[in-house]
Amino acid sequence: MTAKLKTAVLGATGYSGLELTRLLGRHPRTDAPLLLRRSAETADSNGHGLDLPHVPGNGSGRGDRTLQPFSWSALEQHGVELLFLATPHAISRELVPEGIARGLRIVDLSGAWRLKQEQNRAIYGFKDANARTAAELTERAVYGLPELNADRIPSAALVANPGCYATSVILALAPLLSNGIVDRDRGIISDSKSGVSGAGKEPTARTHFVSVADNFSAYSLFGHRHTGEILEQLALSSCQLTFTPHLLPIPRGILSTIYVYLKSEMTAEEVQSCFQKFYAGKRWVRVFPPSSLPEIQFSVHTNYCDLGFCVARDGLRLIVVSCLDNLLKGAAGQAVQNMNLMYGWDEGEGLQ
Amino acid sequence: MTAKLKTAVLGATGYSGLELTRLLGRHPRTDAPLLLRRSAETADSNGHGLDLPHVPGNGSGRGDRTLQPFSWSALEQHGVELLFLATPHAISRELVPEGIARGLRIVDLSGAWRLKQEQNRAIYGFKDANARTAAELTERAVYGLPELNADRIPSAALVANPGCYATSVILALAPLLSNGIVDRDRGIISDSKSGVSGAGKEPTARTHFVSVADNFSAYSLFGHRHTGEILEQLALSSCQLTFTPHLLPIPRGILSTIYVYLKSEMTAEEVQSCFQKFYAGKRWVRVFPPSSLPEIQFSVHTNYCDLGFCVARDGLRLIVVSCLDNLLKGAAGQAVQNMNLMYGWDEGEGLQ
Amino acid sequence: MTAKLKTAVLGATGYSGLELTRLLGRHPRTDAPLLLRRSAETADSNGHGLDLPHVPGNGSGRGDRTLQPFSWSALEQHGVELLFLATPHAISRELVPEGIARGLRIVDLSGAWRLKQEQNRAIYGFKDANARTAAELTERAVYGLPELNADRIPSAALVANPGCYATSVILALAPLLSNGIVDRDRGIISDSKSGVSGAGKEPTARTHFVSVADNFSAYSLFGHRHTGEILEQLALSSCQLTFTPHLLPIPRGILSTIYVYLKSEMTAEEVQSCFQKFYAGKRWVRVFPPSSLPEIQFSVHTNYCDLGFCVARDGLRLIVVSCLDNLLKGAAGQAVQNMNLMYGWDEGEGLQ
Amino acid sequence: MTAKLKTAVLGATGYSGLELTRLLGRHPRTDAPLLLRRSAETADSNGHGLDLPHVPGNGSGRGDRTLQPFSWSALEQHGVELLFLATPHAISRELVPEGIARGLRIVDLSGAWRLKQEQNRAIYGFKDANARTAAELTERAVYGLPELNADRIPSAALVANPGCYATSVILALAPLLSNGIVDRDRGIISDSKSGVSGAGKEPTARTHFVSVADNFSAYSLFGHRHTGEILEQLALSSCQLTFTPHLLPIPRGILSTIYVYLKSEMTAEEVQSCFQKFYAGKRWVRVFPPSSLPEIQFSVHTNYCDLGFCVARDGLRLIVVSCLDNLLKGAAGQAVQNMNLMYGWDEGEGLQ
Repeated sequence: MTAKLKTAVLGATGYSGLELTRLLGRHPRTDAPLLLRRSAETADSNGHGLDLPHVPGNGSGRGDRTLQPFSWSALEQHGVELLFLATPHAISRELVPEGIARGLRIVDLSGAWRLKQEQNRAIYGFKDANARTAAELTERAVYGLPELNADRIPSAALVANPGCYATSVILALAPLLSNGIVDRDRGIISDSKSGVSGAGKEPTARTHFVSVADNFSAYSLFGHRHTGEILEQLALSSCQLTFTPHLLPIPRGILSTIYVYLKSEMTAEEVQSCFQKFYAGKRWVRVFPPSSLPEIQFSVHTNYCDLGFCVARDGLRLIVVSCLDNLLKGAAGQAVQNMNLMYGWDEGEGLQ
Repeated sequence: MTAKLKTAVLGATGYSGLELTRLLGRHPRTDAPLLLRRSAETADSNGHGLDLPHVPGNGSGRGDRTLQPFSWSALEQHGVELLFLATPHAISRELVPEGIARGLRIVDLSGAWRLKQEQNRAIYGFKDANARTAAELTERAVYGLPELNADRIPSAALVANPGCYATSVILALAPLLSNGIVDRDRGIISDSKSGVSGAGKEPTARTHFVSVADNFSAYSLFGHRHTGEILEQLALSSCQLTFTPHLLPIPRGILSTIYVYLKSEMTAEEVQSCFQKFYAGKRWVRVFPPSSLPEIQFSVHTNYCDLGFCVARDGLRLIVVSCLDNLLKGAAGQAVQNMNLMYGWDEGEGLQ
Repeated sequence: MTAKLKTAVLGATGYSGLELTRLLGRHPRTDAPLLLRRSAETADSNGHGLDLPHVPGNGSGRGDRTLQPFSWSALEQHGVELLFLATPHAISRELVPEGIARGLRIVDLSGAWRLKQEQNRAIYGFKDANARTAAELTERAVYGLPELNADRIPSAALVANPGCYATSVILALAPLLSNGIVDRDRGIISDSKSGVSGAGKEPTARTHFVSVADNFSAYSLFGHRHTGEILEQLALSSCQLTFTPHLLPIPRGILSTIYVYLKSEMTAEEVQSCFQKFYAGKRWVRVFPPSSLPEIQFSVHTNYCDLGFCVARDGLRLIVVSCLDNLLKGAAGQAVQNMNLMYGWDEGEGLQ
Repeated sequence: MTAKLKTAVLGATGYSGLELTRLLGRHPRTDAPLLLRRSAETADSNGHGLDLPHVPGNGSGRGDRTLQPFSWSALEQHGVELLFLATPHAISRELVPEGIARGLRIVDLSGAWRLKQEQNRAIYGFKDANARTAAELTERAVYGLPELNADRIPSAALVANPGCYATSVILALAPLLSNGIVDRDRGIISDSKSGVSGAGKEPTARTHFVSVADNFSAYSLFGHRHTGEILEQLALSSCQLTFTPHLLPIPRGILSTIYVYLKSEMTAEEVQSCFQKFYAGKRWVRVFPPSSLPEIQFSVHTNYCDLGFCVARDGLRLIVVSCLDNLLKGAAGQAVQNMNLMYGWDEGEGLQ
């Protein structure tokens, strides 16, 4: 029996971090991850950092969920090979260079290393201590969308795990754009809606229950950070894509309604065939037939991205509906899927 | 002191009917409405038809909320002048000809009389007993959107109260289209989201709490009945407009996110000015400044339609966000607003 | 025409304060209240303090909702007679002595002046600058539950507006206890459930949407601050009452399920009669007949406290279900009801 | 490698049936279950019976989720040994005698075989074709609460799976009552709250989203069917227990707040020790320490029953808070736990 992979999670108290910890804890090829916290994190000290701190260990196996202070020597001492960063992007941008230099492989769940083009990165306002190293790592980082980059993830040292919105939009559009059937110049619109866990665990006026319940709102019009990822991965210019996020009064799940114009008339069967060929053999994408549409409930608590669509009678307008769980296929599940590819395991391992 | 207007509501047990009954019950210029039920309606007999059947009368004034069986003679006997129909469209289509012939004025909340063009009406499958009368009434019926048709509503015998989705979309687009600034041929998209009361009070698999809660879904892609109203009122061709409804896990409220391309570059101030001029003096439309957007919570439980917008940096793409309460500005509130116009009262009467 | 009453609200940005501002803004006998903020309040400066800061004034009348910094001279300058405090209890405890000394009448929505007995007050940890004045005011303060203290409220200078939970429990039990039919020594239990607005507007881990949605929890077992009010108003000893609050995943509303043992067998009709006699002529309490029970939806957005009940077959066990809106009958609505009594107006004025 | 157990599920389209199908589909010791429908069931024919009928089979393994019409010969033909009934109680009452006669083992999720005493059974109104067989089977049936009846379940032919509410109440009280520390005659109260899936999948006025959302209500006061189970399992008389169910606006989960009086003063540590001893080695009950309480979120989507408690300062009043997922520990999960015991497998098999 081969030894199990040693992993660590920094930022285990956030929503993505908790989900990732849960997934790694039951993954057949990894040991329970080393859980780390930055010195600034106080969530763990007041007892609210982990969801069930006081439940005794009769079967729940949660007794070992104590967070250790982060240090490179702690990683070394525990023999960690793969580090997951579920940290704010500025922290990821700061830590990754040393981690890579020390020979670790890293899956970063933040936006720190997803963007190649400086104009897209500007919105994050990164301050790199060593600009050359940062530029070099930016170049080497692989955008961790397994359905698109399965050839480059296995050998990657640094995987930039995609944004949740971006995953839902890119997976919906990639088959259509790569087939050249979309009239890009008429414009593509993604009207996307996300549950509240996508906004993070920090309590704010915007995430207060009374602000969200019975409500629905649009935000970041023409200016959401995930737009850059979508543009880069799909090779679109900024005026070809309009991406609008909205806040849904549900804990988790994303649904994107995506509007494209086709270059020439197509039938529903032709569109379906385009999706099916592109995702043949892809474990975590489900293509719905023309007669039905995905809903958020179908993919929540799974690692699937569900895709459905409808062609207008004129054969020229196409709507794609894309659903996923923002904490799984949109974050922690995809991170595990990336790990599976990085270590040559089956893409479904630990995700069923 | 002048006598108060005698009104009646047929279909008072549905969501719109209940809301209308509540509004009329406190309107300063009408008596409490005569409440009627069709013989087929059993909701009232099992005690679930009205929301508070057993609450004693100490101040609540609900003791008189008994429904009478519908008959023309009952209307006559009570001296009813204005009849509100909160009935299924087939019933409205059937009853209106006799009601008008008997000299009643009617505000119909269904889709029965909203559409002038036969291709748009086809989706309803109306079966008219007397085709000529039906055609004539179809012609005479006034589409009851006060912000657009304030000149024709005062003298109308038959007012076709608009659909909830249609109201949110038409009010958002009318100022832009009437100013000729929209590039119609690049296509207009309305991605609309509604609370569950819009789906009616009938319990179905689709309105079951467990189906709706924590969920979100699109439906009726390229085929919702309200599309025809929007096309007719805005003089658009069917390929110029894509309208997609979605079901929100909230009881009430609609938010439409509407995407248009402008013919030439515009600033936010120019767009704002376009909205403000169009709605100057209009009591029930609120135009938000460029720095803020409406949310469903702001307009729910009011008769307002709230409009906000954002212009892309390229000055050519415009997003309008339109919010209203589907049971008020989208149904019963608008019906009262129409009544106010029909009788020459202030448009805000009974709606504050 | 008589001049309207000049009022002021300190703490207008909290949930109760907003509701109170809305009620006073449309009350026929008061001018729009002067809105005040403490210097420490920053909510208003970042534009999130008021719910619709940017909506232009076309009919909404919200243009004047600017908050002024609090000062006694501002109150004097505006001729304010009645001051509403929707402030944290420590602030209320601090401000009231000077306000009363300056001849103002005050309705305080906090817990600062509700409790006569020191052992009940201890939980608040008040630090009074002048202990004698505080003791004197504590004595003079009238507990503002109009259904119990209608005789003393009209002449009160300082009205301590009851807690939301306390209102729901006291109104359910007062008729039974005053009739001497309850076996107090077998113990009374109130299992109470409240919507999230009861926890205040401060964003915390506990009020984050993801913590509340799909969840339900008990808190403050054997130790909630409202227990003291209930004990004092009903003249119960602490071992006779068990009060347990719970957090409901809804924005507003309280339901208390209250268990009492009767001294001797009673029929449902006798219990109903007991409630009806006690609340005869009371505008804001609705007693349900034995065949039906109140639900939160019935009383939300109204000032009613709804009471229903069920007697066990043994005739000795009685359950009372009590519902109200925690922001109206449980806070702002009751404050207005108290104002109506203080100025000799009809108890329903401004609350329909 | 030993052959896997052949099972069948009748009623696979209800909430419990779906959950059970999902659990059996991934249980390491059973084949995918044979899914059956009664002839009267039409849910499957209209395509809404199963949650994802149209999702293609790329990895989801749902292609085989077709329901077969129920017949004894179909069971025989497939070699089914263990039959799960997720059917209405009248159907279970009718089918079980023949099933047992044919040598099947049965786990029945309905209330048909849970009650030994006729006065408790009366509420169901069973009409037995063969009264003697029914009486005999009633006697033989084992109440399938593994934490109480682990000795009798392994050899049972007929396991009556407990009600969801009953499980939450019995597990909370059994340790206290068996230790003789409860003053039964002062009365025990269970104020229980359940998510909507507990009310079943049938769309009704009561389960309509608009009726449930933002609402909360009590029902079946002094008359819920689960009361009998609790009385029998805990050997209580009907006047010793008051059980009140409520409907929570969440899809799943139960929280019971249970009030008992102790015979003599106890400390929190003594109470904790009582629970811990009783549940030592019990895989699916988690006892919380005195400093923390379970919440619905902790146990939803797990098979745990979580128990927490608080002792009053007087040492004589005790509140127990009990949480579980009504579809797992309250139904399908417990059914699988019973199967594990019936076949001598580990109690946690297939439930992690």
